[in-house]
Amino acid sequence: MGKEGIRYAAKVSFDKPASEQEVLHNRWHPDVPFAGTIKNGEIVKIECVDWTGGQIKNNDSADDVRNVDLTKIHYLTGPFEIETAEPGDILLVEIQDVQPFEDQPWGFTGIFAKENGGGFLDELYPKAAKAIWDFEGIFCSSRHIPGVRFAGLIHPGILGCAPSPEILATWNKREGELIQSCSHMDRIVAQPPNTTNVHAGSASSDIKEKVGKEGARTIPGRPEHGGNCDIKNLSRGSKVYLPVHVKGAKFSVGDLHFSQGDGEISFCGAIEMAGVITLKFTVMKGGVKELDMKSPIYIPGPVEPQFGPGRYIYFEGFSVDEHGKQHYMDATVAYRQTCMRAIEYLRRFGYDDYQIYLLLSCAPVQGHLAGLVDIPNACTTMGVPMDIFDFDISPHVKAEKKDMGSCAYASS
Amino acid sequence: MGKEGIRYAAKVSFDKPASEQEVLHNRWHPDVPFAGTIKNGEIVKIECVDWTGGQIKNNDSADDVRNVDLTKIHYLTGPFEIETAEPGDILLVEIQDVQPFEDQPWGFTGIFAKENGGGFLDELYPKAAKAIWDFEGIFCSSRHIPGVRFAGLIHPGILGCAPSPEILATWNKREGELIQSCSHMDRIVAQPPNTTNVHAGSASSDIKEKVGKEGARTIPGRPEHGGNCDIKNLSRGSKVYLPVHVKGAKFSVGDLHFSQGDGEISFCGAIEMAGVITLKFTVMKGGVKELDMKSPIYIPGPVEPQFGPGRYIYFEGFSVDEHGKQHYMDATVAYRQTCMRAIEYLRRFGYDDYQIYLLLSCAPVQGHLAGLVDIPNACTTMGVPMDIFDFDISPHVKAEKKDMGSCAYASS
Amino acid sequence: MGKEGIRYAAKVSFDKPASEQEVLHNRWHPDVPFAGTIKNGEIVKIECVDWTGGQIKNNDSADDVRNVDLTKIHYLTGPFEIETAEPGDILLVEIQDVQPFEDQPWGFTGIFAKENGGGFLDELYPKAAKAIWDFEGIFCSSRHIPGVRFAGLIHPGILGCAPSPEILATWNKREGELIQSCSHMDRIVAQPPNTTNVHAGSASSDIKEKVGKEGARTIPGRPEHGGNCDIKNLSRGSKVYLPVHVKGAKFSVGDLHFSQGDGEISFCGAIEMAGVITLKFTVMKGGVKELDMKSPIYIPGPVEPQFGPGRYIYFEGFSVDEHGKQHYMDATVAYRQTCMRAIEYLRRFGYDDYQIYLLLSCAPVQGHLAGLVDIPNACTTMGVPMDIFDFDISPHVKAEKKDMGSCAYASS
Amino acid sequence: MGKEGIRYAAKVSFDKPASEQEVLHNRWHPDVPFAGTIKNGEIVKIECVDWTGGQIKNNDSADDVRNVDLTKIHYLTGPFEIETAEPGDILLVEIQDVQPFEDQPWGFTGIFAKENGGGFLDELYPKAAKAIWDFEGIFCSSRHIPGVRFAGLIHPGILGCAPSPEILATWNKREGELIQSCSHMDRIVAQPPNTTNVHAGSASSDIKEKVGKEGARTIPGRPEHGGNCDIKNLSRGSKVYLPVHVKGAKFSVGDLHFSQGDGEISFCGAIEMAGVITLKFTVMKGGVKELDMKSPIYIPGPVEPQFGPGRYIYFEGFSVDEHGKQHYMDATVAYRQTCMRAIEYLRRFGYDDYQIYLLLSCAPVQGHLAGLVDIPNACTTMGVPMDIFDFDISPHVKAEKKDMGSCAYASS
Repeated sequence: MGKEGIRYAAKVSFDKPASEQEVLHNRWHPDVPFAGTIKNGEIVKIECVDWTGGQIKNNDSADDVRNVDLTKIHYLTGPFEIETAEPGDILLVEIQDVQPFEDQPWGFTGIFAKENGGGFLDELYPKAAKAIWDFEGIFCSSRHIPGVRFAGLIHPGILGCAPSPEILATWNKREGELIQSCSHMDRIVAQPPNTTNVHAGSASSDIKEKVGKEGARTIPGRPEHGGNCDIKNLSRGSKVYLPVHVKGAKFSVGDLHFSQGDGEISFCGAIEMAGVITLKFTVMKGGVKELDMKSPIYIPGPVEPQFGPGRYIYFEGFSVDEHGKQHYMDATVAYRQTCMRAIEYLRRFGYDDYQIYLLLSCAPVQGHLAGLVDIPNACTTMGVPMDIFDFDISPHVKAEKKDMGSCAYASS
Repeated sequence: MGKEGIRYAAKVSFDKPASEQEVLHNRWHPDVPFAGTIKNGEIVKIECVDWTGGQIKNNDSADDVRNVDLTKIHYLTGPFEIETAEPGDILLVEIQDVQPFEDQPWGFTGIFAKENGGGFLDELYPKAAKAIWDFEGIFCSSRHIPGVRFAGLIHPGILGCAPSPEILATWNKREGELIQSCSHMDRIVAQPPNTTNVHAGSASSDIKEKVGKEGARTIPGRPEHGGNCDIKNLSRGSKVYLPVHVKGAKFSVGDLHFSQGDGEISFCGAIEMAGVITLKFTVMKGGVKELDMKSPIYIPGPVEPQFGPGRYIYFEGFSVDEHGKQHYMDATVAYRQTCMRAIEYLRRFGYDDYQIYLLLSCAPVQGHLAGLVDIPNACTTMGVPMDIFDFDISPHVKAEKKDMGSCAYASS
Repeated sequence: MGKEGIRYAAKVSFDKPASEQEVLHNRWHPDVPFAGTIKNGEIVKIECVDWTGGQIKNNDSADDVRNVDLTKIHYLTGPFEIETAEPGDILLVEIQDVQPFEDQPWGFTGIFAKENGGGFLDELYPKAAKAIWDFEGIFCSSRHIPGVRFAGLIHPGILGCAPSPEILATWNKREGELIQSCSHMDRIVAQPPNTTNVHAGSASSDIKEKVGKEGARTIPGRPEHGGNCDIKNLSRGSKVYLPVHVKGAKFSVGDLHFSQGDGEISFCGAIEMAGVITLKFTVMKGGVKELDMKSPIYIPGPVEPQFGPGRYIYFEGFSVDEHGKQHYMDATVAYRQTCMRAIEYLRRFGYDDYQIYLLLSCAPVQGHLAGLVDIPNACTTMGVPMDIFDFDISPHVKAEKKDMGSCAYASS
Repeated sequence: MGKEGIRYAAKVSFDKPASEQEVLHNRWHPDVPFAGTIKNGEIVKIECVDWTGGQIKNNDSADDVRNVDLTKIHYLTGPFEIETAEPGDILLVEIQDVQPFEDQPWGFTGIFAKENGGGFLDELYPKAAKAIWDFEGIFCSSRHIPGVRFAGLIHPGILGCAPSPEILATWNKREGELIQSCSHMDRIVAQPPNTTNVHAGSASSDIKEKVGKEGARTIPGRPEHGGNCDIKNLSRGSKVYLPVHVKGAKFSVGDLHFSQGDGEISFCGAIEMAGVITLKFTVMKGGVKELDMKSPIYIPGPVEPQFGPGRYIYFEGFSVDEHGKQHYMDATVAYRQTCMRAIEYLRRFGYDDYQIYLLLSCAPVQGHLAGLVDIPNACTTMGVPMDIFDFDISPHVKAEKKDMGSCAYASS
């Protein structure tokens, strides 16, 4: 046998907009046409654009982040027809590898402006900011956050099979009710279907219009199919078990991350990148009933970075907010406090808060639900690996404030 | 030098009630008298009763759990005077070892009845239930949950320094406001000071009365001092950094756990036990300001059980509840769903739901905050180590329903 | 049920010599009488003396090491009758726990004098030396080797079943031939049977004499039964599969180590201690044939200290000796060179060579057979965990020579 | 900034023989001309051919292995001039990544015939054999060894700086003396300089002749510079510290391995492949004296596959050979026995011995020097990760002999 390689199920172009490429789409809908066919048992490579479809540039200004058009994100590659897959089956997807493109060895982490996207800490940090990361093999470092370097736990942020019409209707009803019930709130609580900038792959204009009107936005993960789960450990070697809802599965993937922390707190919080994912597909007939599965399950791969448990520093947070208000068993409030404790600790070394906010979003931090039963305080923890810093951040070393430069900000 | 050992700073008795032992107490209050003195830099052993002070028996009925008197729990050993410690210092506590008593090689996990304590899943599982665990060296197994055996990540559920009067006042105000604002709710949201069964160590009756009226209940962890954090990884070799609020620190410890899962979901959800903890104390002068510390931090020890990342099966949950209602970014709702997914998966092997609920509470499961920014769905995950089962629970093996017996239930 | 615990199969005394205790013995021979009986499936505790039977003291002189009587070491506890075990079976021994005695929280590491025992580097380091280690829970530190502290990977140095008469004869013949063929060498190459200070438990004087004349010395491990394997990873949670050669198995155990490095290079190179081991015994009928087993196998436990692979510094050695002589594929020579490289590296911090020799013997260093096929050089490596030092030993930090005191030496 | 990538310091061709490419060479000699220049601090990519320079084909016959021309192997890429490097410096080489070529997703493991190369077990297994491995992202599997699949711990087998003339003279003298002293032995013990098929890069014919006459063969690693160390853990993220002996360092690299076991026992025992390595170079001025370094040291990367210690099965071997002869403290003999124990265990599942010999050579097995001081028996161990098999190989499951096909053999 001579030279050969693994088949590409889809290639993307960087010479034309994501919105014009037929192998991409940006809505979950059963009617988006197939972008290709993959055999049961086959291993293929699939190219993906970055999650903004190229809106963010490798420069030192966050104007692009501030002005990002959120109707033009999350271009997924697919949907693919997986031969023999039918509703009720499980699609087992093994992540054999994920790589950035060789000629694009960089990625970015963004903090969205509070008025355009926001993030987990936007009440405290409302400005747009950005860090560019350079990839050096399996490692990355950033001129915007000096003193830090780590191996990426590289993974896809989004993967899933298309919803059936019934499931799609459930999503739209459920999220619509939330929007209605929260109409008094001063923030966007969910993204309903939106025809602006809808991309439905190679769909005819009729289908595209239908997809725009009904199609689920890609932003949230959803229990019935997974989708945008942003699970940092879904890296090389992982196996994901996805329920199939339509004939041929209509599997899509995108939003590749070089690395992410638990929570992905700054929203555009992973190290976002374009790249290639190598996947193996296996259909497990009748698997949904067999496993009594309502949401995806997964088994991580064997090659996570290992720091040793004693090389993490853990911060604790409780469901008492920054105004001293006691919340009842609210893990979301607790984790926000946990993040604040980490920021306060790390700013002693000279970082500004936005740098740390970016770092905690994308570095391999461990976010744990420690205690959820001791009323009224939920307790969560965040473990920050000390070895990602090139200086000693342990509590026993006197913190020395260094000049840590700045992340990229938007012009004012 | 001849035979010698590490000094016991306190011993407990199993021949008289916890409420009569002067080295124990069950409230956080600055006026509880010192139970002993420990030098800065000293290593000592401290004996602890189990968290119910002996109310739960090694038998096959959960009547004791159903009838547990919640005013008689959490007897902590201490408070100890740590020489030279003053407000503003950090007390570094190194956990050198934790051991059950040699003649009590067993512990228990309880599900409290919804009307007496409850737990994370009490809407679904309102009955009292119990599992007894036998300790075999570093391992444990239970006649009430067959097919499972694991090494304990042994740790204290509660440790902390006494609050200052000011901090105590803050707690009472803050939690009081919550109680008031939730008065319409059909559940107890917090435990205010309660004079019933107050135990203030060797305090005079005046002081004891004061401690009863003002003293904070030990149930929740609190940001200012830690307390009942129930952090499963705070095991042998860990270092905890605790803020000191009163002269001499008044350090207390108790609620030893042979093992616990992230979340400790069934409330009495760890493997509760009596035992001995070996601690080293070091005062870091002025440490609170130096580390800009508002809540405790910790660094885990190097000896956690290692299963390999590929030996976990991970379940995903989202903030859509079991009635199909969409919640906005609620990690608590998401984790409850995650637990349900694990229960559904494991019941296929013949376990009943209460057995699994008990198991997920006390086995070393990993609960992660995966994604907290993709509106409206928070996503959490729970990783269950497959190697704690003596049969193969991986998705590729057909589940065989076995006779798994029963956990202990209350008589009806 | 009330108070209870795990049964002690044997207790030792520190008030009378090891040589007078009937539960101890110091030869491998099928005729040593049973010291007790253990059921198939039973978990028991077994007490052990340290490997010198108390000859080494907790002081600052190595006179005791220099003068050690090597006919009075390795008192093993047993042999135990394991019910139902017969030749051809496998005895599965699960190590549930190992603990030092609570009132003897210390151990020692010795370098034997070249003329009395020697060690792996005795050509270079011929003097007797000693380090005393204090146990602080799962950690140990030594006044004789400052700057170092680590969690012990606690384990038994010796465990095995008695040989059959045939196997014993094989051993004596095989080792006798070696002694004869090496009679020109300037060193003791094996220890033949020796009647001096033989201890055969409760044996009658006839049996005792026979055991002395024929019984195998306990120093080497041997392929047919394991014995003195000195495998550092045989720690809590490990399962060892031992071939049974005589009816009832006649299982013995001893030589407990708080910690040891791969190679145990200084001979008395582990942290030797007295203590208690908790074991579970299971007979696998006909297992030897079933597993086609000629030497013991084992599966480590899940709780080894984890430093993370990037927290080791690895030294390389080749089969070229310190005189520049090229040896052919000799891994023993290569590992000696590897040890020398580590000593040279560490002495830059102020340690003297004997301190490092002691440390590399007992700390959890990883000794690997890297390459054994690239003629003529065998290549071995030794990984030293950097986190056992309380200062930074990484190559990027300028080594600062500190006052590191001294290990204990013999008086001159 | 637009598209860009990491610079290639050297590219290889698969359209012409390795012997004709100026960026390759196959001897260690200070006069091999530079193949390129790399800045201090630079990150570059370097392409490498496989260690046979293309002699082995992706087919089902081992004729190519049997007939391999051992004078045409180990074509290294380089030597590179590292700017500012001078004798006495250390060259720090960080391995940022190693990848097979995208269009050559396969590699091979070979057993050389005893009369042409041989291997660690050639007395027992004298025939030529081969296994082809297919790469699926980070995993590999082989049609010649069914039932096995694992993530590669990908690494370079050879890297080092050129020797000075003095060091080269030492090597030739030292190995020449061994050859002389072993002239009675029935095997080749070392490979002296050989002018046949010498390749000295772009050297003039004079220089090439000199390199042929004096140049050291690449087969053994050597203490003074490392070279062919075949250290399986020198994978992504590792840092290697190499002594510099000539101006500009003259660094070379090659012999990429997708995976290897400790010992690389079958000689061509790794999964050999062509590919690309990404390296970062940093010169540490005067580092050799500073670190008192005689042989390379290294620090592994953080991303080794993690199986968990309890997922290995360990075999023990002692320095008693297969004829029952007792050797004195010979770790090489002991490791050979250890390998035999693993082969005996695994053949029960239907594998033939050559398949297992190949597998133990290239899978990530752990080879440890357990005990080296208990005269006369050295004890070594080999840990085989159970999770690389797709069936359960643990001792508690009855071994079922399956049809495991065959590895590739040479025609007779």
